[in-house]
Amino acid sequence: MLTYSFEDRGKLSLYEYLYKQIKNDIVSFRLSPDEKLPSKRELAKHLNISTITVENAYAQLVAEGYIYSKPKSGFYVAHITSANNKNSQHTEAGQKSADIKNEFYADFVKNSTPKGASFFNIWTKLMRETMSDNPDKLMVNSPSVGIYELRMEIAKYLFEFRGMNVLPEQIVVGAGTEYLYGIIMQLLGHDKIYAVEDPGYSKIAKIYKANSAKCVHIPLDKDGISVDALNETQAEVLHISPSHHFPTGIVTPVSRRYELLSWASKSAYRYIIEDDYDSEFRFVGKPIPSLQSIDVLDKVIYINTFSKSLASTIRISYMVLPKKLMDVYNRELGFYACTVSTFEQYTLASFIGKGYFEKHISRMRNHYRNQRDLIMDCIKKHPCYNRVRIAEEDSGLHFLLHVDTTLTDEELVYNAAKNGINISSLSQYYHEKKEMISHTLLINYSGVDGDKLEQAVELLFKGLW
Amino acid sequence: MLTYSFEDRGKLSLYEYLYKQIKNDIVSFRLSPDEKLPSKRELAKHLNISTITVENAYAQLVAEGYIYSKPKSGFYVAHITSANNKNSQHTEAGQKSADIKNEFYADFVKNSTPKGASFFNIWTKLMRETMSDNPDKLMVNSPSVGIYELRMEIAKYLFEFRGMNVLPEQIVVGAGTEYLYGIIMQLLGHDKIYAVEDPGYSKIAKIYKANSAKCVHIPLDKDGISVDALNETQAEVLHISPSHHFPTGIVTPVSRRYELLSWASKSAYRYIIEDDYDSEFRFVGKPIPSLQSIDVLDKVIYINTFSKSLASTIRISYMVLPKKLMDVYNRELGFYACTVSTFEQYTLASFIGKGYFEKHISRMRNHYRNQRDLIMDCIKKHPCYNRVRIAEEDSGLHFLLHVDTTLTDEELVYNAAKNGINISSLSQYYHEKKEMISHTLLINYSGVDGDKLEQAVELLFKGLW
Repeated sequence: MLTYSFEDRGKLSLYEYLYKQIKNDIVSFRLSPDEKLPSKRELAKHLNISTITVENAYAQLVAEGYIYSKPKSGFYVAHITSANNKNSQHTEAGQKSADIKNEFYADFVKNSTPKGASFFNIWTKLMRETMSDNPDKLMVNSPSVGIYELRMEIAKYLFEFRGMNVLPEQIVVGAGTEYLYGIIMQLLGHDKIYAVEDPGYSKIAKIYKANSAKCVHIPLDKDGISVDALNETQAEVLHISPSHHFPTGIVTPVSRRYELLSWASKSAYRYIIEDDYDSEFRFVGKPIPSLQSIDVLDKVIYINTFSKSLASTIRISYMVLPKKLMDVYNRELGFYACTVSTFEQYTLASFIGKGYFEKHISRMRNHYRNQRDLIMDCIKKHPCYNRVRIAEEDSGLHFLLHVDTTLTDEELVYNAAKNGINISSLSQYYHEKKEMISHTLLINYSGVDGDKLEQAVELLFKGLW
Repeated sequence: MLTYSFEDRGKLSLYEYLYKQIKNDIVSFRLSPDEKLPSKRELAKHLNISTITVENAYAQLVAEGYIYSKPKSGFYVAHITSANNKNSQHTEAGQKSADIKNEFYADFVKNSTPKGASFFNIWTKLMRETMSDNPDKLMVNSPSVGIYELRMEIAKYLFEFRGMNVLPEQIVVGAGTEYLYGIIMQLLGHDKIYAVEDPGYSKIAKIYKANSAKCVHIPLDKDGISVDALNETQAEVLHISPSHHFPTGIVTPVSRRYELLSWASKSAYRYIIEDDYDSEFRFVGKPIPSLQSIDVLDKVIYINTFSKSLASTIRISYMVLPKKLMDVYNRELGFYACTVSTFEQYTLASFIGKGYFEKHISRMRNHYRNQRDLIMDCIKKHPCYNRVRIAEEDSGLHFLLHVDTTLTDEELVYNAAKNGINISSLSQYYHEKKEMISHTLLINYSGVDGDKLEQAVELLFKGLW
């Protein structure tokens, strides 16, 4: 039976105190979901208080959803965690995908880093080293832009592997690209119009809109963002991923890149945000030079993340600012504390500096290339291969599958789900639905085990016609 | 001598390639600051290229500040790190205060956690445990609002030590309060008018302004924010620290708290942000109940940080949202990834759950209380004690010292600096200068060693008249 001493209740009334005690027991799981509470009369007798006091406390708990009543049976503890899951279904991505994973045989939507990757062992080893080597420096505040050691390693990496000449002084480190988009809006102004790709990664537009900035969606042609369509808008800032567009996979050729830089050059207020989110995973040939590296007018903000290349649970991203914007940052936003802890900044600096990042990327690239080759083979060997067409650019962790079918995209996705396959269609990524290309599925193979791929393709193809 | 092979220069001209190679050597410190470069003629001969090529490369490097020339002597590598320090003086708070510390005998401006605190050892121990106990869970994405384990520990802590009844489902974890202010603006709107305290912590107003929100500065009376002054504005959101105002130390009494809640109740759009930044460090009596705990209309957003109570290099803060705003968060902002890594979230959950946080706070409170008692004693024993007046509220890490003097505040601060003491005056924290109270110094004793306090008071008093 619930037992509470009322001696410490201070100025609270008996009923308030009882209400709080029970609520606390529920919140801290001392009372379990669906556990039956004593009847009002029993509890009143047990605690030597009046039934009306218990009644008031129970009423308040019911009103606030901590307990529920079953007619003719009594009061029970509510599921406050499942309420949590329900309320925050958009947010609890990890849990949600864990659920989906249990339901689906294979998931071609979710991004994930391969299991058993040796990354984690090395990362924790370096974290231990960081903690023992020089504990004092971990207690010194990081500069707003991140510790110099990390920015220097990033600059070196960008030089060696991306051919970019960047000073550590141009780099701003932050807890995720989403945080950095917010900083960019503070640098360029919330009153600007931001242009994003259509189709595209819908989070980006959401972030601009959540920050009260205007956002226009620009259609793509085969080379990426359409400059004609861009010119028809009042947009001053263009947010693109020219090296490997999500979800179409388009690699913007150099001619179009110059056209975009030329667009940017036409007003002092124009800037291009180059989101280079998966440039590490180009499989064939050299990496495409970044837009930033051919920009001589300081119009490009380059942004990239370690959350994608290392692990999504590590929140470290960075951007490279043109000198002029870096000055604005230092002058107007330099008061911000850096959002990444010194522990993780030093660990990452050491991870890159000791060559582990390069090795990790190379290992991941091989892993993903194998995955891709495996699934391509399965598709090509399928009896219905003549009724689909693969579109990919030797890059990234996904490709497109055009299907010659009369089914709608909704039917394709629904059929796949019925067969145990989670998949998305290209049309889902369009803002302007009338422009959208139908009958095209997005195959993100990063989250599917290699030994499941053949069966997964089989299950997927079942529902295509 | 600098040696570069020109074979890999691709489409770059000889001079461009040379420029980039040298720049890279400078950026990566293969060439040291003030190192002399070979003469143009020498280098040209050595590399078998024309002198004009070297001249062009050097000219570009000079123009961009990587090297400098001394007349009749030659070219030298510039100090690119010191340029960094110079450019980002606002940002590199850690480095800047390290400099100041070298210059000043005692620093009464800087906040800092006591050296040799056992916190660090326990933190790293728990971090190691977190890494070995259950590595798999560290690779599962955190919900947008933070992992449930951490939110539950925070809810329990708030209940036990702050008397607050809060559900884990109302808590949002983020990388610093500054980040969370940004989220609050996205919840409440950038078009709202935000009211802040005058005098107050200037960063808060800066953040609102950086996010293009309108900000009004409300004067304080002896009980905190003036409701009359607040009513004269169009402000809809009020940002205050009622438990211990910075820098005046005012504790807002319950009568004024109800007036403020009443103000908030008059419009559906009004909210109060309660910044409870140092409530852990109340020395005498019970903590002041939070505004959130007496708010029955769901008008208060409670915000607090572990960066202040643990270490400023750990970026973990949280806010408690009223249910309605939590729904808005889940619906509209739940797509954001959590900005704190799972490593540090699990470590903190364990730090609180195992009782270390409570012990740490209690140890810190004792430490600061000793510091305060020491410095108070020194002031009270000083021959000129009759010419000053101490104002404090048994709380926080600072108090005010009113000085009966004819000197201006600038002179007080300047004299102190001359005598090796870094100090700020209350007047520096005012937005509306005509309202400001003069001849009052802010004594933040958290960053001064105990054995330096007596001499520090001596040095400070020297310059007061």
